[in-house]
Amino acid sequence: MRQTANALDDLPWETWDDPQLAKRSAVRWKLMFSGDRTDTADMSAGIAEFAPGGILPLHHHAPSEIYHVLEGEGRTEIEGVAHALRAGVSLFIPAGARHRTTNTGTSVLRLIFVFPTDTFGEIVYHFDE
Amino acid sequence: MRQTANALDDLPWETWDDPQLAKRSAVRWKLMFSGDRTDTADMSAGIAEFAPGGILPLHHHAPSEIYHVLEGEGRTEIEGVAHALRAGVSLFIPAGARHRTTNTGTSVLRLIFVFPTDTFGEIVYHFDE
Repeated sequence: MRQTANALDDLPWETWDDPQLAKRSAVRWKLMFSGDRTDTADMSAGIAEFAPGGILPLHHHAPSEIYHVLEGEGRTEIEGVAHALRAGVSLFIPAGARHRTTNTGTSVLRLIFVFPTDTFGEIVYHFDE
Repeated sequence: MRQTANALDDLPWETWDDPQLAKRSAVRWKLMFSGDRTDTADMSAGIAEFAPGGILPLHHHAPSEIYHVLEGEGRTEIEGVAHALRAGVSLFIPAGARHRTTNTGTSVLRLIFVFPTDTFGEIVYHFDE
């Protein structure tokens, strides 16, 4: 049976396939749950890590998304409204809302993201900048 | 507009309305997102905290659920299969699966839970013990 439990230490870091995008989006992630690789459904989830100064440029996707910050400091703008990120902060990003995340601190920014989709592959990233 | 962003420190602890259940289930939680109190949809989420020795007895609910452990040590049994909990461990609990969580450590066990429902109130807890 495919996994329905995992530990972050055992998961590989991933980034964008597109080298141009990888260059301007200093974020990497680990996927905890995605129905194409884990025996899961209904939700896909991972952890994202931003280096200091790293930016995930303005983008949107059809499904909504939850962020929960584990460590570090940053800022997420959702449709132009800025939210400060620090450990314990949660954000809900409405379906289709344009959002941008920046690590404004001097250490790594780590957050959990969850989508209401069976797989992460269903999330089509449309970049707006 | 109702909140779509919040910080754990600002949220109240909650527990079961049923005093009998509150007595035998040594868990408390904070709700980060639930569409009846936040301007959110698609997913509801919170953080649960178990005192040392605390147990959320065997139960099930129609929707699936994700756990992501933030701190502490424990064990979750899902349909009889035991999973060790420590920081960084994620579990997917399939729809309807019976599960029980115990804090087996000497400090607080904290985990994030997410449901693929608009509200937490949609989660009807059926206890199996």
